[in-house]
Amino acid sequence: MSDSLSKSSTNRSVVLLAGGVGGAKMAEGLAGLGNVDLTVIGNVADDDEFHGLWVSPDIDTLTYSLSGRINRQQGWGVADEALRGLSVLKELGEETWMTLGDRDLGLHIYRSSRLRKGHARQAIADDISRAFGACCRIVLSTEDVVQTRVKTEAGWMSFQEYFVREHCAPEVLELSYRGLDVAAPNPAALDAIANADVIVIAPSNPLVSIEPILSIAGMRTAIAGAKAARIAVCPFVNGKAIKGPADRMMVSLGFEATVGAVARRYAGIADTLLINTSDRAFCGDVKSAGLCAVACNIVMTSLEDKVALARTVLATALSSEACGVVP
Amino acid sequence: MSDSLSKSSTNRSVVLLAGGVGGAKMAEGLAGLGNVDLTVIGNVADDDEFHGLWVSPDIDTLTYSLSGRINRQQGWGVADEALRGLSVLKELGEETWMTLGDRDLGLHIYRSSRLRKGHARQAIADDISRAFGACCRIVLSTEDVVQTRVKTEAGWMSFQEYFVREHCAPEVLELSYRGLDVAAPNPAALDAIANADVIVIAPSNPLVSIEPILSIAGMRTAIAGAKAARIAVCPFVNGKAIKGPADRMMVSLGFEATVGAVARRYAGIADTLLINTSDRAFCGDVKSAGLCAVACNIVMTSLEDKVALARTVLATALSSEACGVVP
Repeated sequence: MSDSLSKSSTNRSVVLLAGGVGGAKMAEGLAGLGNVDLTVIGNVADDDEFHGLWVSPDIDTLTYSLSGRINRQQGWGVADEALRGLSVLKELGEETWMTLGDRDLGLHIYRSSRLRKGHARQAIADDISRAFGACCRIVLSTEDVVQTRVKTEAGWMSFQEYFVREHCAPEVLELSYRGLDVAAPNPAALDAIANADVIVIAPSNPLVSIEPILSIAGMRTAIAGAKAARIAVCPFVNGKAIKGPADRMMVSLGFEATVGAVARRYAGIADTLLINTSDRAFCGDVKSAGLCAVACNIVMTSLEDKVALARTVLATALSSEACGVVP
Repeated sequence: MSDSLSKSSTNRSVVLLAGGVGGAKMAEGLAGLGNVDLTVIGNVADDDEFHGLWVSPDIDTLTYSLSGRINRQQGWGVADEALRGLSVLKELGEETWMTLGDRDLGLHIYRSSRLRKGHARQAIADDISRAFGACCRIVLSTEDVVQTRVKTEAGWMSFQEYFVREHCAPEVLELSYRGLDVAAPNPAALDAIANADVIVIAPSNPLVSIEPILSIAGMRTAIAGAKAARIAVCPFVNGKAIKGPADRMMVSLGFEATVGAVARRYAGIADTLLINTSDRAFCGDVKSAGLCAVACNIVMTSLEDKVALARTVLATALSSEACGVVP
């Protein structure tokens, strides 16, 4: 409560680069601080079309989370959801491994209808956020279509095919990002980066959530040249992803699922890497990559965890203290 | 039961021209006879797009009815329905006066997706009927888009705007059928008509359900020249429509809501008009229009009513008896 009471002209402009579930948790924490003007730059590279509707899983998870609609048990999807529409699509012979609830379909119908009318993706996202009462701005990384493709032994597939249909079971042999070479950064994202006091990289999958944001032309340069303090939160604890396949993906693609590997990926993009207390022995690896390492509890379960981590993120980014362990 | 036991090589080929609710009741009755190969030619002129999805209310009412999915209380829509998707569309600022349930949206998503892929409307309808287990073939009047437009004091509007949004309250000053001048008849409809033993015109709205079928180029000629016995069921009882605005519409457009006016509309298209027993005093008006009049109970409430009326329809059409009252 004291945080929200302290909301004032001293609000910090914070930009968060985020994927879906992990990104949304970090966003909720930052939004919960109250003294922050938060802009979340969301990943669109897991977008896909289902049944002729455009689905934007990471953006929707952010929107649902930041408007208090998220299904808390799942971490994705909407609360009070049902599957009547999908059950009919299944009867009609459609592939229905992508679980799209009835409320969720309402959102996809709306977005798809507006996209077909030629409306800009960011304008649509803003209208959705406003209607849902999201507590901060969600900015798409690009207005263009960028789609992560995953190569496994069975060949190339879409990210959702790998993630949802195949339950991340196959080994990932290669990643590509369709459309990335021609995608332009969303001007709203570049604006937010240029004006940020703090840029935070969420503990999202570095390869399929953060990489497709950073690799949009101009984005890495904008972050590298930003006046903001820049801090990343490590998605790995003890060599394992907090959620999802990021650890196995890093390993199968020749990286490591370690704080050092994350630091090397974010060198030049982040000044500091926040790692879990249990990984504090690896602070040296982070420093070798040129980042400052700070250790604290980075696992977010409750809203209190999220806000506490957000507070540490902000304090660490804004402090000029030496690297170390936050009690 | 005896009807279905008598299913054999002596099955009659019956074609029903039908709108929505009234047409579906007649179709259920005919299908319930068991000794009939039924093809329903459905009206597409109340089709419209909502939220970027193509909705086909009459065809869907037929499909839901003939596959046992209809909401029996309403006479339209699906049983076990909910409105989660529509509630989200409403939150997002969409007009949601067209009540589209979650299961219903599933169907519209499917149809719209296939239409965008360029699939033929009849092929889509056949696949839906097959998947839902519809008990007879539902044939669209045309593959083309035909849309009834309604002129009221407030100006021209779509049929669904008049019917659902305005609850049929405004006086209808004029009707037009967008696309009718260039619409081609569905070959499957012409085939069914050419091969029918009996052609039945359902007690649907003559102006907005039957007229847009009959007025498709070639359709009236095909029915006029068919070898089939042709019989219409009057949609009016005692000068009132059994359901819907057909009576007021007939009157405001300069016709009458009478058995005589119906007979005059169907002259050359039907040989016999089945009217309600309570209207038997007006048999002369039917005969003056050149049709044979037969009176019986034409109000369908229960499935028994529907099957009983269907039995009379068939027996009357196939008999060479004089006009009269069926006990």
